[in-house]
Amino acid sequence: MTHTLGIDFGTNSVRAIVVDCSNGAVIGTGVFGYPSGEHGVLLSPRDPHLARQNPADYLAGLQASVQGALAEAGSAPGFSPDGVIGIGVDTTGSTPLPVDARARPLAFDPKWTSNLAAHAWLWKDHTSADEASRITSIAREHAPEYLSPIGGTYSSEWWWSKIWHCLNVAPDVFEAAASWVELADFIPAVLAGVDDPRNIVRCVCAAGHKAMYSDSWGGLPAKAFLARLDPRLADLRDRLFDRAYPADRPAGALSDDWARRLGLSPGISIAMGGFDAHYGAVGSGVRTGTFVKIIGTSTCDCAIAPVSGEIADIPGICGIVSGSIMPGYYGIEAGQSAVGDILRWWVEGVCEGDDTAHATLSREAAALAPGQSGLLALDWNNGNRTILVDTRLTGVILGQTLHTTRAEIYRALIEATAFGARAIIERISEFGVPIDRVVCCGGIAEKNDLFMQIYADVIGQPMLIAGSPQTPALGAAIAAAVTAGGAAAHHDAWAAAQERMTTVKDKRFAPDPAAHHVYDELYGMYRELHDTFGGVAPSSRTDLGTLMKRLLALKERSTR
Amino acid sequence: MTHTLGIDFGTNSVRAIVVDCSNGAVIGTGVFGYPSGEHGVLLSPRDPHLARQNPADYLAGLQASVQGALAEAGSAPGFSPDGVIGIGVDTTGSTPLPVDARARPLAFDPKWTSNLAAHAWLWKDHTSADEASRITSIAREHAPEYLSPIGGTYSSEWWWSKIWHCLNVAPDVFEAAASWVELADFIPAVLAGVDDPRNIVRCVCAAGHKAMYSDSWGGLPAKAFLARLDPRLADLRDRLFDRAYPADRPAGALSDDWARRLGLSPGISIAMGGFDAHYGAVGSGVRTGTFVKIIGTSTCDCAIAPVSGEIADIPGICGIVSGSIMPGYYGIEAGQSAVGDILRWWVEGVCEGDDTAHATLSREAAALAPGQSGLLALDWNNGNRTILVDTRLTGVILGQTLHTTRAEIYRALIEATAFGARAIIERISEFGVPIDRVVCCGGIAEKNDLFMQIYADVIGQPMLIAGSPQTPALGAAIAAAVTAGGAAAHHDAWAAAQERMTTVKDKRFAPDPAAHHVYDELYGMYRELHDTFGGVAPSSRTDLGTLMKRLLALKERSTR
Repeated sequence: MTHTLGIDFGTNSVRAIVVDCSNGAVIGTGVFGYPSGEHGVLLSPRDPHLARQNPADYLAGLQASVQGALAEAGSAPGFSPDGVIGIGVDTTGSTPLPVDARARPLAFDPKWTSNLAAHAWLWKDHTSADEASRITSIAREHAPEYLSPIGGTYSSEWWWSKIWHCLNVAPDVFEAAASWVELADFIPAVLAGVDDPRNIVRCVCAAGHKAMYSDSWGGLPAKAFLARLDPRLADLRDRLFDRAYPADRPAGALSDDWARRLGLSPGISIAMGGFDAHYGAVGSGVRTGTFVKIIGTSTCDCAIAPVSGEIADIPGICGIVSGSIMPGYYGIEAGQSAVGDILRWWVEGVCEGDDTAHATLSREAAALAPGQSGLLALDWNNGNRTILVDTRLTGVILGQTLHTTRAEIYRALIEATAFGARAIIERISEFGVPIDRVVCCGGIAEKNDLFMQIYADVIGQPMLIAGSPQTPALGAAIAAAVTAGGAAAHHDAWAAAQERMTTVKDKRFAPDPAAHHVYDELYGMYRELHDTFGGVAPSSRTDLGTLMKRLLALKERSTR
Repeated sequence: MTHTLGIDFGTNSVRAIVVDCSNGAVIGTGVFGYPSGEHGVLLSPRDPHLARQNPADYLAGLQASVQGALAEAGSAPGFSPDGVIGIGVDTTGSTPLPVDARARPLAFDPKWTSNLAAHAWLWKDHTSADEASRITSIAREHAPEYLSPIGGTYSSEWWWSKIWHCLNVAPDVFEAAASWVELADFIPAVLAGVDDPRNIVRCVCAAGHKAMYSDSWGGLPAKAFLARLDPRLADLRDRLFDRAYPADRPAGALSDDWARRLGLSPGISIAMGGFDAHYGAVGSGVRTGTFVKIIGTSTCDCAIAPVSGEIADIPGICGIVSGSIMPGYYGIEAGQSAVGDILRWWVEGVCEGDDTAHATLSREAAALAPGQSGLLALDWNNGNRTILVDTRLTGVILGQTLHTTRAEIYRALIEATAFGARAIIERISEFGVPIDRVVCCGGIAEKNDLFMQIYADVIGQPMLIAGSPQTPALGAAIAAAVTAGGAAAHHDAWAAAQERMTTVKDKRFAPDPAAHHVYDELYGMYRELHDTFGGVAPSSRTDLGTLMKRLLALKERSTR
């Protein structure tokens, strides 16, 4: 029997699982909550946009979570640490950290430990909003090709914005850094005992989606472009990397030191690191035609398309990167800026509901027929990531009467997020990547049946739920199994491993044809609002002057 | 010392006050809650739109409230029942009731008592929506002049809709009725001992605003027009009235019978009846340039303009009737379909707040600067009465983030109603009736300082509060005083009586110039939404594609 380890570095904790390569069964789990800051996040009392992490937590968590998982696996029949043939790692991102010439985090140096800029810049750090918008405008003018595969707008959550912001606010940290590394590349390098930043193997997943890397223009952005931001960024380029790779090769082999620390065999292969969403898609069984939705506070949506076919840039899609999810495929990433967050805002923020309020409102909302409330909402309380790529959009609730209830609004908000999801699927399909299967992961998918049924009815396709509650770690374990088998470059091997190691739950949500029919009509009205307030509608396509009346007519027809 | 009685027939009770003619002081009050139905309203378990009243309650209430007021006045120095020189009456409306050939309510006949159609059809009875819409469309085709002074749309709350509906659903009641009479005309006729419907003096206030009466086309609508609705309505016209009058003459003199019942001198004059809102305007000191807002669940707004000047029909204004508020002036009536109701919907309906919640939200909302929430709302949860005259419009809340609070929405809803009020004032001003003074009445005006300050800041004019909490009854008492003095036809006499008998409170709300400046900008955005969703905007005047960004920019400038 062979096993692999999948290790998932989340925002607040790290989780390791030991997985049976024959069937994907998890036989051991270890979880370690980061001890620093607030639930592992270093905050600043002066700046609510700041979110950093202490790299020491990563290493402590790596060791503790793996030891915990192995200890639990030890009681499973047929398990032996010698049978662990590989390790896969997924992380949040873009989470860059500065390292010294020995590839050690700068924050480990007592000189820099107290400087928050020397720690890891967590994905949700938004201190670099100004830099992001300047990168976008400079790229639009001088290198629009850099923006095409990332949806047209560079984000403050991404690599260059953060590093540039560090240069602007903590130039001493910037100058002290020998290089910068994504967390997704840092952990595999640690496990492989890499002691020179130039030898860190970089994944195209992070580089392509967050660092404007593409083989088609020779890797990272040209020095001339970076010099327009700051000449010191152009200099830094020489100390970063020339190539980034899909997961068609290992990131390295387990070092003697870490083999000893973890109780594993030295030299076993370490799969390429990857982002949690991408390995989550692998662990959800992503394949051509499948749309994976990781539904949490926001969503990350993933699909793949064979690199053998040509696909156009898809307007408004965050990223299309060859090999970023699986070798041999374009990885397509999209997302909604707020989903669970909108429901929590309504239930806990506005209605001030307690723990039982979500369930109560779900039950009341489930008694309503589609269209019955007369309400229509836009799901933009946190902007629109896909397909408008515009953070400066806000929420709308329309159609209220004096009898409108909080449960009706709750349902309208779920519907709004479902309409937003449909807009993404339609956009991807229109540009040559047809979708025939939607697989969801996350707590909402597993717990909120009303939510899932509305999504099925709005999208018009069955909503499946991934069999594993830990799809990112499972995906990393699959990558480890394929890599250890020496077949990482062959996409049939990935498909076979997914077939063997992933499942969907028996419980699935089929669209109701009558409800889908009503939602087709409501979705048309949603698009009128969406396109108008999103600034992309010619007014000839919308008729807002009759919208309320059409909603009322639908309400009257729908009331049961 | 001379005194008059003002008697106000409200929706749930009747209130009589004894007023000192020299200074408007109220020296005695009597209140009588209607005993029938639910708080005086007869309801139907089968039809939520039905709202009737038992005319017996009116007569019992007339006697009891006046006796109560006189009893209380009896302890005031210098008061004697012999010094009561006149009686004024105001009522809800349009509240028509069928009467027999002796001018007695049909409902008094045991044969009809159990038939709800034989009782008074309360203003808020909406059973005749179909008839109202048919009247509107027939008038648009055949007699558009009938609709011009009433805002272009005939309402289910009005005279002909109700009588026609009675004919359709209770033809036996319709056939049994010798005539129909507005409650505002019925009470003075009762006091005057009128025993023939042909002798009931009809006020132009009710006839002009609710029954499509105008001297310019010979009184009530032509028989040919009514015959298009139903030939029996054309027949009824002969049994109604030929002329209706402003309050420039008495409705009659107190009969011996009622003088004895009330303990007053027989023969004292009875002023013309009028609607509560119109006499409320008189009691609030309405004059040229004054805009009186009676703010409750909805609002009724009144202004006057001299008949010596010509005023155009004002599009979207509910009614412009010569003499309806005071002799010698056009009475202009407008209104907002929901004001207090919207706040109650939010605080009690959605937020499920208790009695203290309004005060808590007011306090929190008062800490916000104009524009700071980034929110913009439309005040259409119950449609839009003025200036769009469209019941099929609904509410909008726009600009929400994940941090939007219930207090921010509460404030945005107040602002929305203030913008709606400003739209009415601007419309009236644009059509030749400039407004330089706003006087408010009602509980919200007296209790909610935040509401009043926002209105001052939005409208840009001081908001005054009527000195009397009972302006309709006070207005009726003023009418009684002027009529008893024999000077009812002279509008100087009305102005002098108002000057003497009405006040405004010392407490007033002055606009803050900085806040007004921000609200000018927000009002512009409100009108973009208003005109777009109201179906009256050419898209060249709006730019909804940038609206959210403009609100966010304002929010960033406004946050203090």
